[in-house]
Amino acid sequence: MCRWLAYGGDPIAMDTLLFKPCNSLIRQSLSAQRSIAPTNGDGFGLGWYGHLERPGLYRDTMPAWNDANLRSLAEQIHSPLFFAHVRASTGPATARLNCHPFRYGRWLFMHNGQIGGWTDVRQGVERSIDKLLYKHREGSTDSEALFYLLVGNGVEEDPAGAFRRTISQITDLMAGEGVTEPFRMAAALTDGRRIFSVRWSSDGRSPSLFWAAGGRVGCTENSIQFGPGRGSVLVLSEPLDSDNSHWTEVPEGSFLTAQSGEVTVEPFGP
Amino acid sequence: MCRWLAYGGDPIAMDTLLFKPCNSLIRQSLSAQRSIAPTNGDGFGLGWYGHLERPGLYRDTMPAWNDANLRSLAEQIHSPLFFAHVRASTGPATARLNCHPFRYGRWLFMHNGQIGGWTDVRQGVERSIDKLLYKHREGSTDSEALFYLLVGNGVEEDPAGAFRRTISQITDLMAGEGVTEPFRMAAALTDGRRIFSVRWSSDGRSPSLFWAAGGRVGCTENSIQFGPGRGSVLVLSEPLDSDNSHWTEVPEGSFLTAQSGEVTVEPFGP
Amino acid sequence: MCRWLAYGGDPIAMDTLLFKPCNSLIRQSLSAQRSIAPTNGDGFGLGWYGHLERPGLYRDTMPAWNDANLRSLAEQIHSPLFFAHVRASTGPATARLNCHPFRYGRWLFMHNGQIGGWTDVRQGVERSIDKLLYKHREGSTDSEALFYLLVGNGVEEDPAGAFRRTISQITDLMAGEGVTEPFRMAAALTDGRRIFSVRWSSDGRSPSLFWAAGGRVGCTENSIQFGPGRGSVLVLSEPLDSDNSHWTEVPEGSFLTAQSGEVTVEPFGP
Amino acid sequence: MCRWLAYGGDPIAMDTLLFKPCNSLIRQSLSAQRSIAPTNGDGFGLGWYGHLERPGLYRDTMPAWNDANLRSLAEQIHSPLFFAHVRASTGPATARLNCHPFRYGRWLFMHNGQIGGWTDVRQGVERSIDKLLYKHREGSTDSEALFYLLVGNGVEEDPAGAFRRTISQITDLMAGEGVTEPFRMAAALTDGRRIFSVRWSSDGRSPSLFWAAGGRVGCTENSIQFGPGRGSVLVLSEPLDSDNSHWTEVPEGSFLTAQSGEVTVEPFGP
Repeated sequence: MCRWLAYGGDPIAMDTLLFKPCNSLIRQSLSAQRSIAPTNGDGFGLGWYGHLERPGLYRDTMPAWNDANLRSLAEQIHSPLFFAHVRASTGPATARLNCHPFRYGRWLFMHNGQIGGWTDVRQGVERSIDKLLYKHREGSTDSEALFYLLVGNGVEEDPAGAFRRTISQITDLMAGEGVTEPFRMAAALTDGRRIFSVRWSSDGRSPSLFWAAGGRVGCTENSIQFGPGRGSVLVLSEPLDSDNSHWTEVPEGSFLTAQSGEVTVEPFGP
Repeated sequence: MCRWLAYGGDPIAMDTLLFKPCNSLIRQSLSAQRSIAPTNGDGFGLGWYGHLERPGLYRDTMPAWNDANLRSLAEQIHSPLFFAHVRASTGPATARLNCHPFRYGRWLFMHNGQIGGWTDVRQGVERSIDKLLYKHREGSTDSEALFYLLVGNGVEEDPAGAFRRTISQITDLMAGEGVTEPFRMAAALTDGRRIFSVRWSSDGRSPSLFWAAGGRVGCTENSIQFGPGRGSVLVLSEPLDSDNSHWTEVPEGSFLTAQSGEVTVEPFGP
Repeated sequence: MCRWLAYGGDPIAMDTLLFKPCNSLIRQSLSAQRSIAPTNGDGFGLGWYGHLERPGLYRDTMPAWNDANLRSLAEQIHSPLFFAHVRASTGPATARLNCHPFRYGRWLFMHNGQIGGWTDVRQGVERSIDKLLYKHREGSTDSEALFYLLVGNGVEEDPAGAFRRTISQITDLMAGEGVTEPFRMAAALTDGRRIFSVRWSSDGRSPSLFWAAGGRVGCTENSIQFGPGRGSVLVLSEPLDSDNSHWTEVPEGSFLTAQSGEVTVEPFGP
Repeated sequence: MCRWLAYGGDPIAMDTLLFKPCNSLIRQSLSAQRSIAPTNGDGFGLGWYGHLERPGLYRDTMPAWNDANLRSLAEQIHSPLFFAHVRASTGPATARLNCHPFRYGRWLFMHNGQIGGWTDVRQGVERSIDKLLYKHREGSTDSEALFYLLVGNGVEEDPAGAFRRTISQITDLMAGEGVTEPFRMAAALTDGRRIFSVRWSSDGRSPSLFWAAGGRVGCTENSIQFGPGRGSVLVLSEPLDSDNSHWTEVPEGSFLTAQSGEVTVEPFGP
């Protein structure tokens, strides 16, 4: 079980969300509140949009709480849209190329969850990835494979449909192998403008997922503040502070879309 | 607060103590039972004696639970005397050269604790290190500095005296700087034959320390077993399993010596 | 282009070959003599046999010349059979799981060379790996994939045949994709008793390969010495010193077998 | 011997200088043209100014040519003033905290060269560092120590004087220890507005140093182009391409100041 956070809105210094809140993502790397695995110390990653269409990517294998580079990048870089992830491995080795987010062209993807019976279904999944996309496959995680399936399944034109088709493909492969472990996901995907997020699982026990929206985001005395109006959206594994008025839980089986500060949550199933 | 373990006795595969017990040192790296900081993920180290007078040293900055190399070394290498340490930094950066154990000639040293007001007294401590020994100073930790003071204070001839003189030197420097934070230590030192260990603090709140002794050590079903007779000694931050019959707590203000399977514990103060 | 070295014979400290000779493998990591790429700084690995059937494995992403751990392990560990490898990537990322040697059960494999058009044929190669073996696939290199094909093609019963079948499989996939780049290899494989090595390429321009044999191996004044008699075998990318009397080049299209100090070299082609 | 580069002018993407030129700094990490040590693979670092007074810092122990994070940061981050450094160690361990540039407040410092007899004079140098500054000392390099001496010697008010006083302090300590090896430096220092650089050595054999200035900097077909007018300055260990019209060598014994696109070079000696 990993922890992640997606932000879209006015450009802000990334440490506003990664380091400053009392339950910041970096704090969650050492001691998450709503996760089966409290320690998310098996690498981390940061993806952000700047001057280029292609997002920046910074991933490393140290625990996030321990990386002076991350602290410096997060305080220096202002971005209107960024993804951050702290990893607790469900098996695959700790290596930069197994760290989230994953990048393809102008897309970023990150995930918390697991494809049940991954070692059994993996070869079938690898085979299902589009041949041209497969050239970009670097690691051995189910999450990176999921991403390339999504891209191949038309995420550009129809993101919810791409998730639906990908989940069907994988559950078919799981059924073919007789896998009984569940498939669970809390995933986030972006093209640099819109953030899409899915909370879904085959057994109705999806990983936690929350969102918040409002005006300009800041952090005062370790608590998140939203200015008046709107434009800022947060989608994340767990709240960054204890102010429950901010955070809305995403229900099981949901597809969330965030664009220009607006959040819509729709029922989702394969 | 760190966690550590010292073993002396018949050569055993190091994973017997590092990986197999239910509360193994590697398990403690993720979730220590008797430590203020449950996560000891800021690097680790292993020092062991083999064919040479000079011990081997393997230190890295990953969390110990995450390092496939450590697992392989621990199952392959048999050693009659080894030190292992998992680190929770009290300030200095996570770098191999700040990881314990430290080595000088045929000596190894590791430590759990802290010199109060370290940033204030540090320059005085650095100046107090013997000039020839100072050439070996690599990092910025109080622990490595402590080690070179001990060596310079005659650890070869009189280990307890060297600890006494070193503690006096440091408490004098602390007093000179008006430091009020305590000086606490649970340290282990070896020349490859004898293990010396000190549990002491300026405020009577020393880090935990235990020992156990018996015949050949093994691990069955995650529990430590000692064969009949004697020859094996363990000195460590916390018990490796819940069998309280094995583990003896070292009292506050003690100097422990282990040699040829015999353990003596004497009152100790500066 | 990488550099590697395999040793079989009386147990020796690994630094005898890795660090001491004038053109030691570690020296080759910084400045190889007979390689297209003089710098082999994209990770390294060490596999050795000890008390267990399963060999030990130590791999890291630093340049070999820069790793204090490697120096310590190489001087401490005595082994009757070990593989060492310094890597110059032909594309896949620098990660521990892309470093050689690769291990499966009691087998080790390492490689210098390249499957031409790897990104085009890769998906076909992944699909050809035996389903049970595929669970062990961790990285994205052609070398690791080659290894699992060899294992699946019966390396246990017929090593030369397994190489032949594997090469045919791959050249068929290359032809199917219209690949025109060559397939070149200088590979070494061991079960802990016998060392097998292949020098072959589709274009007759295989990477360099040498062997040497004799009595007990030592290193004096940076030069390799063999004692009288026999029992020791070295197979390696390039000579460790300038004494040409030691080193025999393996011809293009050869299969080398080393066992109990005896070396046989036979013509080899798919 | 290391290689470094300092840029000041209009904000540019850092990869313009770090990756794109034919003899880019990253290329120099693998194969420098004008250095005793062609391989500068013992870590690297990047310091840059953005929205804050305090510069950003990104340092790692991998060879620069091997770090996907560096590539991404260099293409994403635009900066009006940045320092980049690739390291070839003269002794001290490869660790992030031994990598250049070093940072203090709004200052950055980087260096190529060596204090002769460093292990002998080190303890004296450590003692000479201002007590408050010493709290920031993290590693064991002569370069980091040099930096804190410079800060303590009034670099804020009188940069050239601070260099002069620091060199005198060090040469006195060297004389006191009877050191005969030379003290050589090609150093760069910045407060975020001005770049100061010194080329000096005790034996008249300073490391190479060059500068270039002009209008807006770009890189076309691996060659550096300056637009018309002025505003951009480069100070660096060796030229980035073979167009000799750009690059002016800084003479032995010089103090260079770059501000608002103007470069002045004055004779310098302690």
